[in-house]
Amino acid sequence: MINDNSDNIVVSSRVRLARNVKGLPFPQKLSDAGAVSYLVNAAVHAADFEHELYFMSDLHEVERQALVERHLISPDLAGKDSGALLLSDDESIAVMINEEDHFRAQCIKSGFALQECYNAIERYDDSLSKVIPVAYDSEFGYLTACLTNVGTGMRASVMVFLPAMTFTDMIDNFLLIAKNNGLTFRGVYGEGSKPIGCLYQLSNARSIGLSEQQIIDNVSKSVSEMCASEQGLRRQLLSREKNELTDKAYRAYGVLSNARILSSGEFMELVAFLKLGMAMDVIEFKDIKTLDKLIIDAQPANLVKIAKSYSLDAGQRDLVRAALVRQVLKELK
Amino acid sequence: MINDNSDNIVVSSRVRLARNVKGLPFPQKLSDAGAVSYLVNAAVHAADFEHELYFMSDLHEVERQALVERHLISPDLAGKDSGALLLSDDESIAVMINEEDHFRAQCIKSGFALQECYNAIERYDDSLSKVIPVAYDSEFGYLTACLTNVGTGMRASVMVFLPAMTFTDMIDNFLLIAKNNGLTFRGVYGEGSKPIGCLYQLSNARSIGLSEQQIIDNVSKSVSEMCASEQGLRRQLLSREKNELTDKAYRAYGVLSNARILSSGEFMELVAFLKLGMAMDVIEFKDIKTLDKLIIDAQPANLVKIAKSYSLDAGQRDLVRAALVRQVLKELK
Repeated sequence: MINDNSDNIVVSSRVRLARNVKGLPFPQKLSDAGAVSYLVNAAVHAADFEHELYFMSDLHEVERQALVERHLISPDLAGKDSGALLLSDDESIAVMINEEDHFRAQCIKSGFALQECYNAIERYDDSLSKVIPVAYDSEFGYLTACLTNVGTGMRASVMVFLPAMTFTDMIDNFLLIAKNNGLTFRGVYGEGSKPIGCLYQLSNARSIGLSEQQIIDNVSKSVSEMCASEQGLRRQLLSREKNELTDKAYRAYGVLSNARILSSGEFMELVAFLKLGMAMDVIEFKDIKTLDKLIIDAQPANLVKIAKSYSLDAGQRDLVRAALVRQVLKELK
Repeated sequence: MINDNSDNIVVSSRVRLARNVKGLPFPQKLSDAGAVSYLVNAAVHAADFEHELYFMSDLHEVERQALVERHLISPDLAGKDSGALLLSDDESIAVMINEEDHFRAQCIKSGFALQECYNAIERYDDSLSKVIPVAYDSEFGYLTACLTNVGTGMRASVMVFLPAMTFTDMIDNFLLIAKNNGLTFRGVYGEGSKPIGCLYQLSNARSIGLSEQQIIDNVSKSVSEMCASEQGLRRQLLSREKNELTDKAYRAYGVLSNARILSSGEFMELVAFLKLGMAMDVIEFKDIKTLDKLIIDAQPANLVKIAKSYSLDAGQRDLVRAALVRQVLKELK
């Protein structure tokens, strides 16, 4: 298994657990403000880390969307005034309260770190289970609002950067292999979202019939295989088309560091070429972490937050995005 | 009339005179080596400036083509082993010997300088007429191999950079106006060549029935009108699409200063955007002269000469061109 991130394939890892309170209706049927209050208090009590609490009803639409873009809440929670978020100060642990389930606690870390994520979120879950009576069935396991989560209530997912598979049009074949290995594939922004910038989310398709550790191990194994294939394809690209790759990476750098108008789609496409060039060591820049942070910051709502103006339209955002990208790339090493 | 080049529309001016020796067959019928020798001696004798003499038969095909790209000889002369070139050290005066006519003497200067070119080449012509008996008819004027040159034997031409007319698709209308004013239009590399990089050559269509000064004045007047229209269109573009123009100019800079593979066509297209951005003062760079020199240096044969390798194929030239362009743009101010 590949544990370092030197090949820049696994961008981030995430494990989330869905939990519900025994005897309390699932959120869809839960309109009682007192009950929500109870959930919030429980989530806070279980936390042994520094954190902030956000009530969706207190947040501007843009702030909610910015949390979605940073993968800290789901679009569903963003649309739900009775929802709340408990967020650790380092943003590694995020507990969505009153989303589809009473609690959805996730740990997200950069690089290939599913085991670490699982260990961290299991610790929170232990703590939570001492505060609330958890809805658990000895036969089915944890009970959840949607059947696909019953069992472990766990989703272990990695976001992978697969430019070689994408540019050689072999990505669909590899996604099919992953599917046969029990994985499911989504775009960067969850179910139904399209892959952009050669970024794909892979996670376990089933959460029942396997132990938590088995799920972690299965996903890790499949992702490792995917990484090996991507590395092989990258080596082939490098030996056959080094000039073209170098050219594409530097052109991407040239446009990103000079454009005055930059749409989100073009930005993601160019960043993918630049990151591929970095990962394959054909260009002088190395700092992929800066680009991964920029990918988040350049999303519409985060951009609007950075610009401190909630009234930007799409055309104005393209100007602000271009300015931000130029500024960040100027410092790229 | 606009005499400075602050608006960067007129790239260069050129006046050439076609002359023949009375009693000697035109070059097409002239196979006698002794006669060619006589022409060469006459051309040299008439020169009161520092110069070099080049016999086509001594030059590699690439060197001939490089002279064509630098607008110092015609493709016809490049293909003719019995031809020669007398070139002043500053390259402003070039006398093609034994091309279509016995002598075709040109003066080329940067910017809008037809009168200066005419004065300089008239001086050489006076000198030449003292060395040879010139083929001249009191009714028709100077006699030339092709009827279109009979009369003054003169062609006064300017190379103009018309990006605003080109990008607004109004260029054809303006070229028609120029035609109605007695001008003819060619691409950058003479008759039949296509316009590239928004560059156009305009010159007098007729060389008979007008005096030399009238031809100079007519071409100057038409070109001045064209410059005024181009300036008007540029102002309109600037007021309506400043962000888009700035974006295009900087993107062109970004690609030119970063690409590793650059075809001649893409290079010319990007340079046009960059020059337009400079001319309209929307980007920080000002040095158009450097780009105009680069346009010549980046042409295939000149590139091959610079790379000092005559065996470069088109693919290799695209790498060498990209490297040259990066190097030059690094120093752009």
